Amino acid sequence: MNDDARSVGHVKPQRARFDETIRLRSGAQLPGFDLVYETYGALNAARSNAVLVCHALSGNHHVAGFYDPENTRKTLGWWDNLVGPGKPLDTRRFFVVGVNNLGGCHGSTGPKSHNPATQKPYGADFPLVTVEDWVETQALLADRLGIETWAAVIGGSLGGMQALQWTLAHPERIRNAIVIASAPKLSAQNIAFNEVARQAILSDPDFHSGHYYERGVIPRRGLRLARMVGHITYLSDDQMAEKFGRQLRHDAHRFNYDVEFEIESYLRHQGDKFADSFDANTYLITTKALDYFDPAFSYGGDLCAAFARARADFFVASFTTDWRFAPERSHEIVQALLHNGLNVSYAEIDCAAGHDSFLFDTPYYHQTLAAYLERIAS
Amino acid sequence: MNDDARSVGHVKPQRARFDETIRLRSGAQLPGFDLVYETYGALNAARSNAVLVCHALSGNHHVAGFYDPENTRKTLGWWDNLVGPGKPLDTRRFFVVGVNNLGGCHGSTGPKSHNPATQKPYGADFPLVTVEDWVETQALLADRLGIETWAAVIGGSLGGMQALQWTLAHPERIRNAIVIASAPKLSAQNIAFNEVARQAILSDPDFHSGHYYERGVIPRRGLRLARMVGHITYLSDDQMAEKFGRQLRHDAHRFNYDVEFEIESYLRHQGDKFADSFDANTYLITTKALDYFDPAFSYGGDLCAAFARARADFFVASFTTDWRFAPERSHEIVQALLHNGLNVSYAEIDCAAGHDSFLFDTPYYHQTLAAYLERIAS
Repeated sequence: MNDDARSVGHVKPQRARFDETIRLRSGAQLPGFDLVYETYGALNAARSNAVLVCHALSGNHHVAGFYDPENTRKTLGWWDNLVGPGKPLDTRRFFVVGVNNLGGCHGSTGPKSHNPATQKPYGADFPLVTVEDWVETQALLADRLGIETWAAVIGGSLGGMQALQWTLAHPERIRNAIVIASAPKLSAQNIAFNEVARQAILSDPDFHSGHYYERGVIPRRGLRLARMVGHITYLSDDQMAEKFGRQLRHDAHRFNYDVEFEIESYLRHQGDKFADSFDANTYLITTKALDYFDPAFSYGGDLCAAFARARADFFVASFTTDWRFAPERSHEIVQALLHNGLNVSYAEIDCAAGHDSFLFDTPYYHQTLAAYLERIAS
Repeated sequence: MNDDARSVGHVKPQRARFDETIRLRSGAQLPGFDLVYETYGALNAARSNAVLVCHALSGNHHVAGFYDPENTRKTLGWWDNLVGPGKPLDTRRFFVVGVNNLGGCHGSTGPKSHNPATQKPYGADFPLVTVEDWVETQALLADRLGIETWAAVIGGSLGGMQALQWTLAHPERIRNAIVIASAPKLSAQNIAFNEVARQAILSDPDFHSGHYYERGVIPRRGLRLARMVGHITYLSDDQMAEKFGRQLRHDAHRFNYDVEFEIESYLRHQGDKFADSFDANTYLITTKALDYFDPAFSYGGDLCAAFARARADFFVASFTTDWRFAPERSHEIVQALLHNGLNVSYAEIDCAAGHDSFLFDTPYYHQTLAAYLERIAS
């Protein structure tokens, strides 16, 4: 098949409105909310072929296909290499759903949305949401779409945490959890990096305690710094060395604060791009959701006990160069699952791209994942 | 000996004025400058027992002893556990010199100093300085003190780079180089972390293009963030896990942006403390000096060729949990030295404290260092 034939093609987001008040894990309530989502492929008559794709920190509902046929590359979904006819998550077999999480900034109700209580954007009044809350709202969307049980829930990084949480919150509604480059909880170092990112935003004078929309500004500097520090943790040391090393922008040292080494240019570019496209309040909320995720917390830290109620089969994958969520973090998950006699497949994949490896189509990665998905095709 | 007997006691900084114009590696010139320094112990008649201690990013000339007898703990030198009578760098044998580097913010001429050309503080007009420049100005101080040859030059991290540079710039003036937790040059990831720190400062609205002194403000937010991100790289992942883990500040989650996990409190505290005591322009200059250090650069990247002119004996040490300048970076140095038939001692030390390990008194570390220093005692 050529590339066009393997694309889900031109896609459009859809919107689901939920009028019920929901109570979040924090105790806060929301008087109804919207979820924006996309679907690819067709739900079969048995409604047994649905796969939910959960996004990570900077992702959204636009998983596959493109918005603008004139500009397919620039409007391509973030996991387009995985989802489509003939791709590992094959849309000829599966009905795939991507959803923008609650608190997001790409259409679902979040800090940028209208707060009926104040007639202004929520801003900092938008409550903190957790992985648990996301799964509950995803379950409401599943109800709406007539999906009683997911054939699979799949995600990388924070997305993988949502897949894990599905097996705990709704063990009877998920047959397979696909957990890639994830962790059962953040380490102190992970939290530390998140905290620096948050402080960059919170201390930006344009943040205005989270109510910057009304001021017509955005905390651009903070968001840019947050993304720069994030990017260092997404790439591996080796990959940075290989890609940029100490390559100079000019022939000689310039002895000023302009770009001297190419790595500086890369980071500034990534920071700028992100600051132009993402919302700072959503960034804050999402890093907190990462920090809070800890299914073993109510079991005295015993992850085996936490997974006692899981019923799904699992595919877990990690990447050798990922130092944000190193393979050891996936081993913890695998061990807890095996302890409970669950069916687990695990792949440790050589890929130089660090944490970001889950977004690449390394052959062994996509082949093992395709094989697993083929096995569960209904 | 009790602790008091092992202290160099109450110390006072001294000041050396150099009226000659110096030309820096960048091509910029300075019309004279001051260096602030401290000395401990006595220079022997042969002037053969002098040891120069070079400081790292946030250090200064106050290496040992205390300023305030009423408050010894709070005014203690940063390497007091190493320097004193009966300590590894034994002041009964050695005449030890600590110096605040040019461009610093603790007394030596730097961005906070008076610029005779503008009658204002230098601010951003203070030129970038390099490790090479520091060594040249330290050589002028050695001349002033009547020290023709150092028994040893010692430093950790960026301080170790200065010790290395001494063996290259003045091979005949240094008998031993003691290079701890250092690297022959920064990696792309090292530069990336520095760049985030710099961008935090440069983008702080209170930075005013480096001329904040005249405005009566300091780029506190930026400096605080720079230090926070720095601190993550100074500690090991394991040590953070052991020291803080996911320990909560309160009994339950609070679901806000106050301190939730203890690691957040630690980072904020470190950032605040540093922002109150360090100068942002000096921080910028120092990170750039780190970025630029690369003795192999003029040898097509060949570190062995770069060290062909070194004549000193070397003691190199690294720490197993240091991921900023990992043991592999010390191996590069050791290999280049051995390639040149130089006399090298090397210790790889188990210490949980990451890059900061060089500041601790782990027994094996201090014992091997003491043994080496005893061997060279003149």
